[in-house]
Amino acid sequence: MSVLVVGSVALDTIKTPLADVRDVLGGSASYFSVSASFFSPVSLVAVVGSDFPQKYIRLFKKRGIDIRGLETVKGGRTFRWQGRYGWDFNDAKTIATHLNVFASFDPGIIKEHRLSKFVFLANIDPELQQKVLAQVKNPRLVVSDTMNYWIEQKPKSLKKLLKKIDIFLLNDLEARQLTGRTNLLKAAGDLLKLGPKRVIVKKGEHGALLFSKNSLFCMPAFLLENVYDPTGAGDTFAGGFVGYLAKAKSLNERTLRRAMVYASTMATFAVEDFSLKRLLSIRRGDIERRVRQFRMLTSF
Amino acid sequence: MSVLVVGSVALDTIKTPLADVRDVLGGSASYFSVSASFFSPVSLVAVVGSDFPQKYIRLFKKRGIDIRGLETVKGGRTFRWQGRYGWDFNDAKTIATHLNVFASFDPGIIKEHRLSKFVFLANIDPELQQKVLAQVKNPRLVVSDTMNYWIEQKPKSLKKLLKKIDIFLLNDLEARQLTGRTNLLKAAGDLLKLGPKRVIVKKGEHGALLFSKNSLFCMPAFLLENVYDPTGAGDTFAGGFVGYLAKAKSLNERTLRRAMVYASTMATFAVEDFSLKRLLSIRRGDIERRVRQFRMLTSF
Repeated sequence: MSVLVVGSVALDTIKTPLADVRDVLGGSASYFSVSASFFSPVSLVAVVGSDFPQKYIRLFKKRGIDIRGLETVKGGRTFRWQGRYGWDFNDAKTIATHLNVFASFDPGIIKEHRLSKFVFLANIDPELQQKVLAQVKNPRLVVSDTMNYWIEQKPKSLKKLLKKIDIFLLNDLEARQLTGRTNLLKAAGDLLKLGPKRVIVKKGEHGALLFSKNSLFCMPAFLLENVYDPTGAGDTFAGGFVGYLAKAKSLNERTLRRAMVYASTMATFAVEDFSLKRLLSIRRGDIERRVRQFRMLTSF
Repeated sequence: MSVLVVGSVALDTIKTPLADVRDVLGGSASYFSVSASFFSPVSLVAVVGSDFPQKYIRLFKKRGIDIRGLETVKGGRTFRWQGRYGWDFNDAKTIATHLNVFASFDPGIIKEHRLSKFVFLANIDPELQQKVLAQVKNPRLVVSDTMNYWIEQKPKSLKKLLKKIDIFLLNDLEARQLTGRTNLLKAAGDLLKLGPKRVIVKKGEHGALLFSKNSLFCMPAFLLENVYDPTGAGDTFAGGFVGYLAKAKSLNERTLRRAMVYASTMATFAVEDFSLKRLLSIRRGDIERRVRQFRMLTSF
């Protein structure tokens, strides 16, 4: 089944200890779409300026991504993010954020997309996330991401949104920040009480956790020898997760756990090169090979 | 087969956000012995002062631990450690260390113990670790721990020791410190070049990794709702690991991975109460139950 994603399409300027790149394709919806497109059809809803390179449009099209929802604001400038990473790669330091056309982004969902069964609300203003969701009729699964900025700025809107979604995706710091709990088991318990049926806590290089009221899945991460650029890892994870589920027959615990493994596998590709470079070079076989490798790394 | 452990037996004074305790049984060899004793016979080599409570001697005996190698220095005071933990429990702050009788500890291994097939060299001066090891005839498996203090103070002795052991156990910070590598895969690669056939990197609440030249096992950790006192978790892990291996028939990859799971399981009990309290209250059935639970938490 088809996946609808609403988020950002950006031009990133990134410096890591290994190299730096300028105005490369980035944004939550970009990473998500490309990652999910390996498993299911994807419709992307976002906004760019008229400076957005045509080569990136072709790239989305080449992956079969439906970009009818990608609005181009004439004369506007595309959202730009500038960041830097140190050697440990865990912490992105934002140097500059220029929202540009993204500042007035107010996505209207076209008729065909309103019937989407799988929806991913990438990390944008929770009020926008709600507005988008209100336009979709009877989705089967709604997954939502967030970030520290929205937890600080719009906690009420975020909590309102949580009542309406199925799976809430956030990282360990965000889970602690939103609940005021250090212990992740307790933090997840609190988050589940706010509405979502499942909570996924991403722990970066330490793996991820999938919580429900009655179950818990603890997944370690791959150990990677070469991390070039961690930008987009979380959104690539989300893309693998929702994309995998959209093609699966059921949404039971077993399927969700496998979706987590595919999600994590997709993220390992994302960080092996800048922007979407590595993700765009792989084939389904590479993914399956790495999933098998992951099974070998973790079985006992 | 029997396990020989050389390390510290201490009296700990610990403060955590939940409570504090004074002069309770601690020390690497204490945690290790009690943990390993659930799987194999254990012989403990350490030193205490004449102030060491008889109740703790009885406790070792009750667990069937051979304490012929536990020397009591008449008129001496037992090694004391005073520490404090904050809410995140990851970092112990040492308030005071009084080596006392431990300062001149120079263990002579009695004849019967020199034939031990499984040896654990707990976190003591690497020169002492070597001295002990030199007294053991043809051990089948030698596992060694260390800490930041020895990495800083005696890196040469430590590297000399590493040539003579089979498995090196340390935490992620120590692995990074000793190798100067941020990436754990590269750090472990460097450590393997120093001599040991296997390296175990403990990551606390994030699980542990088992490396060899040709294999890697990534294990997540249990998520615990209530951590009361993380003191001794690493030594309890080591005790479960070596104890499990000493009773196993082979030392192949599969057995080593299972030993990691038992090691981690034992550590979860250790942190659920102060000192050895919880570990001393469990039975084999509790361990097996938690190992099954771990399998459920991690399978996909």
